[in-house]
Amino acid sequence: MSEDGFRVAVVGATGAVGNMMVRVLEERNFPVKSLKLLASARSAGKTLSFRGEEVPVQELTEDSFRDVDIALFSAGASVSRKFAPLAASQGCVVVDNSSAFRMDPDVPLVVPEVNPQALRNHKKIIANPNCSTIQMVVALKPLQDAVGIKRIVVTTFQSVSGTGKKAIFELEQQVRGWVEGKAVPPSVYPHPIAFNCLPHIGSFLENGFSEEEMKMVNETRKIFEDPDIQVCATTVRVPVFYGHSESVNVELKGLLTVEEVRRLLEKAPGVVLVDNPDRAEYPLPLNAEGRDETFVGRIRKDPSVENGIVMWIVADNIRKGAATNAVQIAELLVKEGLLSG
Amino acid sequence: MSEDGFRVAVVGATGAVGNMMVRVLEERNFPVKSLKLLASARSAGKTLSFRGEEVPVQELTEDSFRDVDIALFSAGASVSRKFAPLAASQGCVVVDNSSAFRMDPDVPLVVPEVNPQALRNHKKIIANPNCSTIQMVVALKPLQDAVGIKRIVVTTFQSVSGTGKKAIFELEQQVRGWVEGKAVPPSVYPHPIAFNCLPHIGSFLENGFSEEEMKMVNETRKIFEDPDIQVCATTVRVPVFYGHSESVNVELKGLLTVEEVRRLLEKAPGVVLVDNPDRAEYPLPLNAEGRDETFVGRIRKDPSVENGIVMWIVADNIRKGAATNAVQIAELLVKEGLLSG
Repeated sequence: MSEDGFRVAVVGATGAVGNMMVRVLEERNFPVKSLKLLASARSAGKTLSFRGEEVPVQELTEDSFRDVDIALFSAGASVSRKFAPLAASQGCVVVDNSSAFRMDPDVPLVVPEVNPQALRNHKKIIANPNCSTIQMVVALKPLQDAVGIKRIVVTTFQSVSGTGKKAIFELEQQVRGWVEGKAVPPSVYPHPIAFNCLPHIGSFLENGFSEEEMKMVNETRKIFEDPDIQVCATTVRVPVFYGHSESVNVELKGLLTVEEVRRLLEKAPGVVLVDNPDRAEYPLPLNAEGRDETFVGRIRKDPSVENGIVMWIVADNIRKGAATNAVQIAELLVKEGLLSG
Repeated sequence: MSEDGFRVAVVGATGAVGNMMVRVLEERNFPVKSLKLLASARSAGKTLSFRGEEVPVQELTEDSFRDVDIALFSAGASVSRKFAPLAASQGCVVVDNSSAFRMDPDVPLVVPEVNPQALRNHKKIIANPNCSTIQMVVALKPLQDAVGIKRIVVTTFQSVSGTGKKAIFELEQQVRGWVEGKAVPPSVYPHPIAFNCLPHIGSFLENGFSEEEMKMVNETRKIFEDPDIQVCATTVRVPVFYGHSESVNVELKGLLTVEEVRRLLEKAPGVVLVDNPDRAEYPLPLNAEGRDETFVGRIRKDPSVENGIVMWIVADNIRKGAATNAVQIAELLVKEGLLSG
């Protein structure tokens, strides 16, 4: 690390995640020497506040990374595919929140609480996993370490912020329209999202699963470095602004009692156990909003299968599911001396 | 059946389900000779429209059933426990929508498309299953018949109407409050339901499961007359007004391809297949509202387990999940000559 910190760029700075990356860099006091905010030409000229200063947003170009040590990308897969290798070739380390490089065997896919070791051999591009995967592996890591996981069945309740600012606006407008008695037709989603549940996140593949569902399968295997782990996901968009919730049934390779699972989770990094259902205490997306931890509760023995455990996992998808995880990766790079300022 | 039909009572007529029972009796042209609407003293004097006439609501008393052939109850378990045996002892057949008698071995628990045969030995009280169970067994019945079901893992997305009118009002008020920028604290639910997901339906039991979750286990076994079927449920309240959605992973006892499952469901009574994800066609609670069928889609092979199938099941919880199923039971009693007018 240089004396004054690092020259940092945020690509897609005006998006929901990009915005949050800037906030989280400030909150966590990341050693920023200079901050460059990049976005499409359309957003150039806007400003974002960072440490009390208004930082102008610049247009992303091929020359944007010449004076940048580390860039956090959240501008979609096509932008990442074009600009991340370019940035890397100019010596800039990229933490990419898109799906572009996640399954590339040369690219570490990292959740700092789960597989920090994967960072070591990075080749300048590091992928941030999908939001719904991150919170699930944070919660399941202690179980995988303790006895191993055979199979995961997961159903998600995903908030509209995962789609981006336009989707947040769409839910807002549909709710306002409902109050005023006028229908606001969908444009971001194929159906109204207010007062509805859409089992549709990403495009559908040949096998009937959606892209989001297959991300949960493939990314979980890569992060756990366990190609044999079985995962079946159903991903659903719900009328919630922030916070993804997950209903997870795990089949373990050995026995863990509910009490043992609770004890493992209590000391797991990044996890907060909220599990007093008798007092109506369990993880809720409204309570997770603005938090960086992954909340786990409703832990039960699944009596329908050997070594089964059921749980309910909630996290702020824009923070731990995206921005915070990316900044944590940057912090880990600094800590491990894997970033040159 | 008497020449002019039957003397029908609806108990809990002013509730969300009771109201709908009256509408469904009219819509389906049930042979009603006379309709008696019963509720607590508080609601007595109100009127409900039936076949163009305003029918007064009367206070439920011990004498209410003397001149009634069949009574549809939806006034909660304690009312049913007190008044259903009383009605039965006076010769009235009771179709009870509460949980009071569902697990009573002397009481048939009936979904007409699934186990009509269970009606035959009724002893004047017949139980209507829980809403989330009904739609699941309607959709799974063809699979159970074809090869048998070993295990079901289900996660529900349940609308507030399942809780009743007060909960519908609470979601409305919270949404209006949100638009107006003022918080409306929860009173029906322990937490805000607007823009949130609550993994809490019914009280929690010793084993960590909620009552609603255990209903799905026990009622499924009873309806399928299969005590070995394994079920694990996670039931969640979501900010939707009408329509329950369910993400279901089934492990079958034998192989069924996705195409075979689709063909079975296409001809299954009460089921509508909506399964063209490429055209964004899948079951949605907003589309199920006001319908009597159970909608099934997102059918996939679950590659994480042998003979696994995944699906998404949606129905109007107030109609098929409650009122319509109760009226269908009444229709079946008439058709089978099991009701004397």
